[in-house]
Amino acid sequence: MAPTTSTTPSSSHEIESFVIKTPCSSANIGPGFDVIGLALSMYLELHVTIDRSKAHHQCQYPLNCRITYEGEGEGTDEISLDPEVNLLTRVALYVLRCHDQRSFPAETHVHIKNPIPLGRGLGSSGAAVVAGVMLGKECGGLHHLTGERLFDFCLMIERHPDNVGAALFGGFVGTYLKPLKPEDVARKEIPLSEVLPAPAGGVDTGIKPPEPPVGIGHHIKFPWAPEIKAVAIIPEFEVPTAKAREVLPAQYPRPDVTFNLQRIALLPVALGQSPPDPELIYLAMQDKLHQPYRQTLIPGLTEIVESMTPTTQRGLLGVCLSGAGPTILALATSNFGEIADRIIAKFAENRIACSWKLLEPAEGTTVVRV
Amino acid sequence: MAPTTSTTPSSSHEIESFVIKTPCSSANIGPGFDVIGLALSMYLELHVTIDRSKAHHQCQYPLNCRITYEGEGEGTDEISLDPEVNLLTRVALYVLRCHDQRSFPAETHVHIKNPIPLGRGLGSSGAAVVAGVMLGKECGGLHHLTGERLFDFCLMIERHPDNVGAALFGGFVGTYLKPLKPEDVARKEIPLSEVLPAPAGGVDTGIKPPEPPVGIGHHIKFPWAPEIKAVAIIPEFEVPTAKAREVLPAQYPRPDVTFNLQRIALLPVALGQSPPDPELIYLAMQDKLHQPYRQTLIPGLTEIVESMTPTTQRGLLGVCLSGAGPTILALATSNFGEIADRIIAKFAENRIACSWKLLEPAEGTTVVRV
Repeated sequence: MAPTTSTTPSSSHEIESFVIKTPCSSANIGPGFDVIGLALSMYLELHVTIDRSKAHHQCQYPLNCRITYEGEGEGTDEISLDPEVNLLTRVALYVLRCHDQRSFPAETHVHIKNPIPLGRGLGSSGAAVVAGVMLGKECGGLHHLTGERLFDFCLMIERHPDNVGAALFGGFVGTYLKPLKPEDVARKEIPLSEVLPAPAGGVDTGIKPPEPPVGIGHHIKFPWAPEIKAVAIIPEFEVPTAKAREVLPAQYPRPDVTFNLQRIALLPVALGQSPPDPELIYLAMQDKLHQPYRQTLIPGLTEIVESMTPTTQRGLLGVCLSGAGPTILALATSNFGEIADRIIAKFAENRIACSWKLLEPAEGTTVVRV
Repeated sequence: MAPTTSTTPSSSHEIESFVIKTPCSSANIGPGFDVIGLALSMYLELHVTIDRSKAHHQCQYPLNCRITYEGEGEGTDEISLDPEVNLLTRVALYVLRCHDQRSFPAETHVHIKNPIPLGRGLGSSGAAVVAGVMLGKECGGLHHLTGERLFDFCLMIERHPDNVGAALFGGFVGTYLKPLKPEDVARKEIPLSEVLPAPAGGVDTGIKPPEPPVGIGHHIKFPWAPEIKAVAIIPEFEVPTAKAREVLPAQYPRPDVTFNLQRIALLPVALGQSPPDPELIYLAMQDKLHQPYRQTLIPGLTEIVESMTPTTQRGLLGVCLSGAGPTILALATSNFGEIADRIIAKFAENRIACSWKLLEPAEGTTVVRV
């Protein structure tokens, strides 16, 4: 249950409680650069309590919202508890303001429980955006907003559909941005600072923010063989996504493009076949468009990706960088601990410490009323 | 039955007859440049008769092989009936010579029935290579050669796996070339003139030709929704594949690469879903890596591809260039004639005449003994 630490006594019907649960996710899975996302079984949770017994003017919190946070590992101290600064509440506020609600209901308490390590390529910010959009929907009572429409809102904040698609819809998904109509192209390019007003969001200018065009993104669910699990090896350092994009070239040679096209076409079907074909999956997980360039940011990356094959490691299907890294994702059907140990040992050669987790495909974002 | 016009009377057990049937195919299907192939229900047939009653020295034909041909449309007169020149028999001879057989069994008659138009993007040469490899296997009694091994032989002649993969294995397939071991890379790059000895193949130098490395290519079969059929609109002019490759750039900008990766990841799964989702398929069939560049070779291509959507044409799922063109492939669930007529009318604006055929996914190459 959520730590509903409301301090004012109030009748139970005036208190509304719910939990928003959003999975972490791994993007790319080798060749699927900016395309595929896999929701995994580690969850960001928002335990939300709305106490409507308080009058608006009684609220001591900006935007009527109090944030508390419970998280793991490094990066946690960077999380702001100010609702005008925190990404989750800024995103929620964007949804609310698009629907003529200027702030959270008085008084909203959002308790964030976040086990997803930040800046490691496990979709922590994608999860925050999705959970934030859902928080806006739930706080605003905006029950008409479908999953597809929520996806539009997510894509206004986070322009890469792979992580948010997985976090929102769950499972193993392929996503793409639709070609927009000319009149929508300009709107799509709205700077985030206007969507989430500068300097920090939450400053109520009274101007309704620009709503997302309808149908920015499309997604499809791929099948996933039940035998396949994901071993996430999480190094102790962060790789900022922006930096991981900077190292990529503006142009790619045609043979490298064909190499990835051939593999990404096969991978979703290969990962859905039961029993899985290790050789097929191993080869289909290879990439020439992002991993080789990210080698500079993640010491030993190429060696790690190439260190094991299904022939030399029983149970292994394939190894890739999770999103922009530095987390390594190994897909496997058995010997999970052994696989993790071998990759951890490779990182250790570069004096990088790691933790690891065994994860499974997860369902998408859920809201449970308590 | 095959036109077994053997002129020498002979006992029935000395005459061996079989029919090799290889489907035409469409490669790319929009975003799947050099990746996906779809076998379609128009077949190259080789009606083969081997009359073993003749002694080797009695044969009047070079390499013990007589070729007759029955084909449709233009380009037919370019087909050589000389077994030292004809692509089918040269390919068969390559397979035979890799297995220490210097020529065809005396006396072999190959009657070619070919309805696949040449140089139109319907995989006529891929079908010839596959049928030729199978002809070598059957004439040589090389029953140990598996489909996978035949694929290696095909890939020594035709380095693009999409058409040959579809023609050999049938259905809707994804193909890729495996990364070769260093010792095999040199062998993979053997010029075709050495595989099929110059000047025209068939000149028996007594040197065994280089065998293909094992496992050059890999393939996977994708599901195909039974409702979906292919309308092929075939213009009356040829586009040589080499020319269609020349117009492609050496480098691609990153956004165009991502555009195609997103679509090719979804397309095979989308085309397997029943009932098909027209909007999803239409968007997933778009391409930025080859079709825009081939516009110069195929007048009106972009307009044709963009002229209809599932909203403006009932039954339509998507439109693409078939292989390197000029054939246009429209995937649809109904209104096939109407769709063909609209595309033919578009070609007519550029004074290009067309024929059209309604095709379905086909099984791979078969050998029927008669």
